[in-house]
Amino acid sequence: MMRLVKGNSFISLKDYSRGDILSVMQGISTYDDQNLKRFIPNKKKLIANLFYEPSTRTSSSFYAAATYLGYEVLSINNVQYSSVAKGESLEDTIRTLASYVHCIILRHSEEGAAFLASLVSDVPIINAGDGIGEHPTQTLLDLYTIYKEFNRLDRLTVTLMGDLKYGRTIHSLVQVLNMFDVHINLIGPDNLMLPSQYYKKEYIESTVLTENVAMSTDVLYITRVQKERGAVGNYAFTEKDSKNLSDKCIVMHPLPRNEELGDWFDSDPRGRYFEQMSNGLAVRKYLLGEILG
Amino acid sequence: MMRLVKGNSFISLKDYSRGDILSVMQGISTYDDQNLKRFIPNKKKLIANLFYEPSTRTSSSFYAAATYLGYEVLSINNVQYSSVAKGESLEDTIRTLASYVHCIILRHSEEGAAFLASLVSDVPIINAGDGIGEHPTQTLLDLYTIYKEFNRLDRLTVTLMGDLKYGRTIHSLVQVLNMFDVHINLIGPDNLMLPSQYYKKEYIESTVLTENVAMSTDVLYITRVQKERGAVGNYAFTEKDSKNLSDKCIVMHPLPRNEELGDWFDSDPRGRYFEQMSNGLAVRKYLLGEILG
Amino acid sequence: MMRLVKGNSFISLKDYSRGDILSVMQGISTYDDQNLKRFIPNKKKLIANLFYEPSTRTSSSFYAAATYLGYEVLSINNVQYSSVAKGESLEDTIRTLASYVHCIILRHSEEGAAFLASLVSDVPIINAGDGIGEHPTQTLLDLYTIYKEFNRLDRLTVTLMGDLKYGRTIHSLVQVLNMFDVHINLIGPDNLMLPSQYYKKEYIESTVLTENVAMSTDVLYITRVQKERGAVGNYAFTEKDSKNLSDKCIVMHPLPRNEELGDWFDSDPRGRYFEQMSNGLAVRKYLLGEILG
Repeated sequence: MMRLVKGNSFISLKDYSRGDILSVMQGISTYDDQNLKRFIPNKKKLIANLFYEPSTRTSSSFYAAATYLGYEVLSINNVQYSSVAKGESLEDTIRTLASYVHCIILRHSEEGAAFLASLVSDVPIINAGDGIGEHPTQTLLDLYTIYKEFNRLDRLTVTLMGDLKYGRTIHSLVQVLNMFDVHINLIGPDNLMLPSQYYKKEYIESTVLTENVAMSTDVLYITRVQKERGAVGNYAFTEKDSKNLSDKCIVMHPLPRNEELGDWFDSDPRGRYFEQMSNGLAVRKYLLGEILG
Repeated sequence: MMRLVKGNSFISLKDYSRGDILSVMQGISTYDDQNLKRFIPNKKKLIANLFYEPSTRTSSSFYAAATYLGYEVLSINNVQYSSVAKGESLEDTIRTLASYVHCIILRHSEEGAAFLASLVSDVPIINAGDGIGEHPTQTLLDLYTIYKEFNRLDRLTVTLMGDLKYGRTIHSLVQVLNMFDVHINLIGPDNLMLPSQYYKKEYIESTVLTENVAMSTDVLYITRVQKERGAVGNYAFTEKDSKNLSDKCIVMHPLPRNEELGDWFDSDPRGRYFEQMSNGLAVRKYLLGEILG
Repeated sequence: MMRLVKGNSFISLKDYSRGDILSVMQGISTYDDQNLKRFIPNKKKLIANLFYEPSTRTSSSFYAAATYLGYEVLSINNVQYSSVAKGESLEDTIRTLASYVHCIILRHSEEGAAFLASLVSDVPIINAGDGIGEHPTQTLLDLYTIYKEFNRLDRLTVTLMGDLKYGRTIHSLVQVLNMFDVHINLIGPDNLMLPSQYYKKEYIESTVLTENVAMSTDVLYITRVQKERGAVGNYAFTEKDSKNLSDKCIVMHPLPRNEELGDWFDSDPRGRYFEQMSNGLAVRKYLLGEILG
């Protein structure tokens, strides 16, 4: 429904097929080939970065992507302190902004907000995260980081570790990985396991990262365990875990991180969590470039 | 005193004559003729958008207008949380900013702030609303919406409905409409009637929008009734009201709106409240274009 | 260690020699020669303005400097309300941002933050103030204001007045002035005197600005006395003080000001506190221009 087409909104990966995903991966890599920070001056568009909840990382990445593509950006952050929030419907705000700009990047706390916005907007909406809904550009940058490393999304073993219950990042990633020939291992506290609706295949579940699982892992994806939800210390990635991983395994994390991934690992060549950030820039350049053309 | 002249500040419509207003309407339309979102790149100016109180709608509109004219914008929002607010006089802030930029768009909570700023500024000040004082670009966009529809500001019947006591928007609009051959009807709760100083002619007053008044109305201008100031429900625009209005009548609202104007009316061809927003872009492009040259 | 070199960070003036400082003064003046507000369009860089604590004056000045040099700016203000602040280390934030931009201007509340950031950043860090540490561009603009007036930093008498104990501005300035042939007078409450570690020469100390000291002063530098730290009224600059100063003396203040410097002096030709602001623009253009090339 909401495929990537010039002039369309980009709301969700839900209806994407394997082929769609792979073609998106190819597309991102064409943007990633170039110097990521090169300017393509054109100034033919003004883009609103409308963030109802703060996410400096995501808004900065979109801002940079748009700027390098030569677009201008109208940043509306901290909406919760502004008049937009006062008794105005999202629809009215979107309609108003759409009369000023050529595209709206929307971050909102409520699931479905981006889709709702796309229904009333005269200009494309790009979903930058809608609460417990989706954060599709995060999913794309995770996928692209894997694709960039292995040049494929099939025949891989991905181990997800940490809070698998509440993490939107994990849920979205699992849904796409399930479309590919990927073995998934789940490592986390019993009370923070993956909700059953995301189970599509046989997964190996464990409360610890065993040597066997570690050795067979191509991608170790670690996520934050928030203290109020479970014991952190037990689910931190350790030096012993690091030794059990193969040389070709990569370690990912959506950031920000807590104690589950210490900075002692930062100099390890297998870490990809900072590369994920620059891959995010490539993803967002690709999306804006394709949609705004 | 403060007419629209290149290099001057724009503070108030108080001293504008009928002729001034009509020439401004013509001027705006020359900016509105073009594609509103076309860029005119020149980057020869940097403009500060200095908002002491939040107004995302107005600041975004000025930002977009300046950007499409090819100017750069330094946005200073949320001043209440910043160092500017801490024990520094408005005059010192203006003097400092004026040494950085070519023009200052000022929103302030105190009446007279824009005029005060213009006295100490080396660069033009544009009044983006000064408390209970004026919000002259709002007034211009209201007037321009009417002018664009009827190609005149004379021989019209304008019905103002809602909170007529506290609405700065209404007060400013009435003052300019009084300069023209306009019949004004006032519809609102007794305790929220237009303050006597704005009465310059015979107005029809009523607590309900009667069929007679509705039928003769060219412009129905609805404003918000805030709950703490009076009963909302009774002063909402109803489907029956809608039927009583003529086909050529237009319905305006400064937004944001509450229950006084339901979204059931959004698909009606007589609504102009979203067009008011894009007309605001034309007004601000015109002002910046004329003043900064 | 941290000299001004293209591609390097700019953290501190601590290791600068007399010769370094004088060559910086010359460098600034080449930027100050031009029209300060002229654009040099190139758009070859994106710069992050990362402010962990609000300082509208400093961030605006850097924003304007970068913009006039033709750079784009990603503004991240109010970090305290944003996700960056939530449990993410400064290092991770810097690493992430460094993957998006070509330079990071950093304001932080903790001493040493800019240096720490420079250790993990792939792009130059510019220190825009790190708590009780340094605010080296403020020091440069103070020095440059003196240099611009007298065309030298030697053979001058500088009188510092106000809170000399807590003012970072004063401490940084004294350290550089001590490298030159400058007589320093200290005027302030006993309990707000200059900490002993900054004493490198014989200074004249006094609780009042005596006629003798005033007459011999080339530069009177007034700073704020915050009410909670001592009596303000007694240390305000008075009309009598003004008469005692010579015609060639200049009066400086880092702003914002309180009662210690009344606006009655604003029309006096010896005041330089607003010029300090535009000199700050020259300083920041110079730094960005040299570092980013």
